[in-house]
Amino acid sequence: MNSPLFAATSCITLLTDFGQRDAFVGQMKGVAIGINPHVRLIDLTHEIPAQNILRGAYVWNDAVWAFPAGTIHVGVVDPGVGSERFLIAAQIGGHYFICPDNGLLSVVLAEHPATRIIELDDRKWWRDTPSNTFHGRDILTPVAAYLSLGRDLLELGSERTSPPVALPLPVVTRGRTSITGQIVDIDRFGNLITNIDLSVVPVGAYSFRVEFGAFAIEGLSRCYADVDIGDAVALQGSHGRLEIAIRDASAAEEFQAECGRSIVVRWKGPTE
Amino acid sequence: MNSPLFAATSCITLLTDFGQRDAFVGQMKGVAIGINPHVRLIDLTHEIPAQNILRGAYVWNDAVWAFPAGTIHVGVVDPGVGSERFLIAAQIGGHYFICPDNGLLSVVLAEHPATRIIELDDRKWWRDTPSNTFHGRDILTPVAAYLSLGRDLLELGSERTSPPVALPLPVVTRGRTSITGQIVDIDRFGNLITNIDLSVVPVGAYSFRVEFGAFAIEGLSRCYADVDIGDAVALQGSHGRLEIAIRDASAAEEFQAECGRSIVVRWKGPTE
Amino acid sequence: MNSPLFAATSCITLLTDFGQRDAFVGQMKGVAIGINPHVRLIDLTHEIPAQNILRGAYVWNDAVWAFPAGTIHVGVVDPGVGSERFLIAAQIGGHYFICPDNGLLSVVLAEHPATRIIELDDRKWWRDTPSNTFHGRDILTPVAAYLSLGRDLLELGSERTSPPVALPLPVVTRGRTSITGQIVDIDRFGNLITNIDLSVVPVGAYSFRVEFGAFAIEGLSRCYADVDIGDAVALQGSHGRLEIAIRDASAAEEFQAECGRSIVVRWKGPTE
Repeated sequence: MNSPLFAATSCITLLTDFGQRDAFVGQMKGVAIGINPHVRLIDLTHEIPAQNILRGAYVWNDAVWAFPAGTIHVGVVDPGVGSERFLIAAQIGGHYFICPDNGLLSVVLAEHPATRIIELDDRKWWRDTPSNTFHGRDILTPVAAYLSLGRDLLELGSERTSPPVALPLPVVTRGRTSITGQIVDIDRFGNLITNIDLSVVPVGAYSFRVEFGAFAIEGLSRCYADVDIGDAVALQGSHGRLEIAIRDASAAEEFQAECGRSIVVRWKGPTE
Repeated sequence: MNSPLFAATSCITLLTDFGQRDAFVGQMKGVAIGINPHVRLIDLTHEIPAQNILRGAYVWNDAVWAFPAGTIHVGVVDPGVGSERFLIAAQIGGHYFICPDNGLLSVVLAEHPATRIIELDDRKWWRDTPSNTFHGRDILTPVAAYLSLGRDLLELGSERTSPPVALPLPVVTRGRTSITGQIVDIDRFGNLITNIDLSVVPVGAYSFRVEFGAFAIEGLSRCYADVDIGDAVALQGSHGRLEIAIRDASAAEEFQAECGRSIVVRWKGPTE
Repeated sequence: MNSPLFAATSCITLLTDFGQRDAFVGQMKGVAIGINPHVRLIDLTHEIPAQNILRGAYVWNDAVWAFPAGTIHVGVVDPGVGSERFLIAAQIGGHYFICPDNGLLSVVLAEHPATRIIELDDRKWWRDTPSNTFHGRDILTPVAAYLSLGRDLLELGSERTSPPVALPLPVVTRGRTSITGQIVDIDRFGNLITNIDLSVVPVGAYSFRVEFGAFAIEGLSRCYADVDIGDAVALQGSHGRLEIAIRDASAAEEFQAECGRSIVVRWKGPTE
């Protein structure tokens, strides 16, 4: 099943909460190239807050779809490492995902059904004498590397039919002329990323208004530079959802905002 | 125009103010390998302070010339994303640069003339339905990836003759036995990087002295270890310009220094 | 001596105290691919605390052995750059190490003897006109890149017989039913990494107890999730040595622990 052509162009991405001050990520890469010396390794981010599976789930879903089909995505936010939780590999939307079964796939699966789910229960594809505290290096990475060599997913473990663990995701409530969601991520610029898909706002709507706590922003802008420096702006972010920013400053600081905070979008028409 | 050989060894570098806690950079890489699965991708830094074009311009110029000719450098410090500013690709000193036309090339162009400048106005080389807030992913990266496949620069947009936006750079003033410049960067060690090219100091000069505010350093050293631990040292940095450091400590903290602060170098002889 | 096959799969890892906010690491990579356009470059970490050779030595040894034999490891924690210290390349345990001779290899060499040590005294393999402050870019990286092309180690400098500089490592003292060591690293999660190899605890031992300052932990766990959230846990870390953690929190903060602090492990039996 090993195809040299596949091996030379296959790609593994890595998303973890390991940070970059230790060499955890480097060790995973060493294991990967020991199995497939040609595989491409790309970091998505290693700065998911420690043990924050939900944040990892949102960032993962925002990142992976920029990659070509066939990409192998390894996710390690794994506070239960070594305990009874399962490790899985899944085929979803033409991509492969390898991670602990702890909810890290929740956001990906909320939008894309899994074609196939495998439990990583075959020690043949693990490192010898795996540790109990670093399954990312000792199980997830070698499985990903063998997959990158052209192995079939079904070879790597037992197929299962029960769905992966799903975290309760913040709920988006749609009214006739409003939609209520939450801040689900805050990016490096302090921009507030919501789970509100603006495609629900009908064409021709007017009096668009975003409310959060005591604050409100009137109108939907195209880009940050549509407002003056220091002013607040609501726009459709690069992920396709509502984003709240302050031009050239941090909305998170200015509004003392945090993940989970409720956001309401209201509009009028065109059908009223 | 696609040369497989060129594609397999071509290299794109990335410099941004995106940080590493989100997956913005990962998304750019996913787009790049979707177009050229063999391209090499190298991070210069993603820690340019948010929206700080001038700092990005200095770091970019210090970094790119270590790469071989033909390297493609993508720079994204782009507070005006989605607004009226242009996006450009330029051929400079045998390298390619792709960035918003907002001054990010100011330092590179102050030392090397552009051979050719292209406006990225041909949507054929963009991602479908580009966002208004992430042109790094949706326009700059795909253009760089097509260039890495061997496309000619002239295919990727319209040639233009007007020069790129130039930021006013801090001025270096040369006297007969002195030169006055500024701190233009502070590195991770707290070393103060200036814009003062020491090659203007004549061979045989003596009584070399660096003054900044209430502080002064006598003599030019070869390396940090030329002085005792905790002592200040002036030397020629790895970029070729004057650098002020404290051995095994942070000059930035010790001197409460910041970018823009004025630095004077004085000497005597050999012609006096 | 250049083997295209070797060149295409050879790998250089990088460990430095350069951080990621400047483009020092990017410059090293540019120099490397200018010499070997096919070499793989992998970051171990660049967040070794500035000038902290001992910490670098521990992290390096924990990271490198995950890589396949033949990997070339470049380490740059080099406060003495430009001064009288030597630069060396060493063959150790089937891997190559290139670094200043300042103790950075101390932990690697404490466990694995060097097969061969070379002084990097042949300017033919250096960059032209090397700086005095960035030998990582100007000497260590080009030597590593030529080695990655299949050059023999003996070509790159003069063989020497004297051992590299060895830092005094924290001492582990073994009693009949106890072992005393130190915290030698604190990872990103705040877990306390010790130099205590748990394989010295005899099979069948009981009443296992870890003491540090006023604190004690009873029993050795398998994984973090063996205890309740917020409870302290002692276990064998992914490096094979004793690690102290608090589940889903930071042991370093909770215990106000720092590197160098003494740790005692006590047990009973099975031979008493």
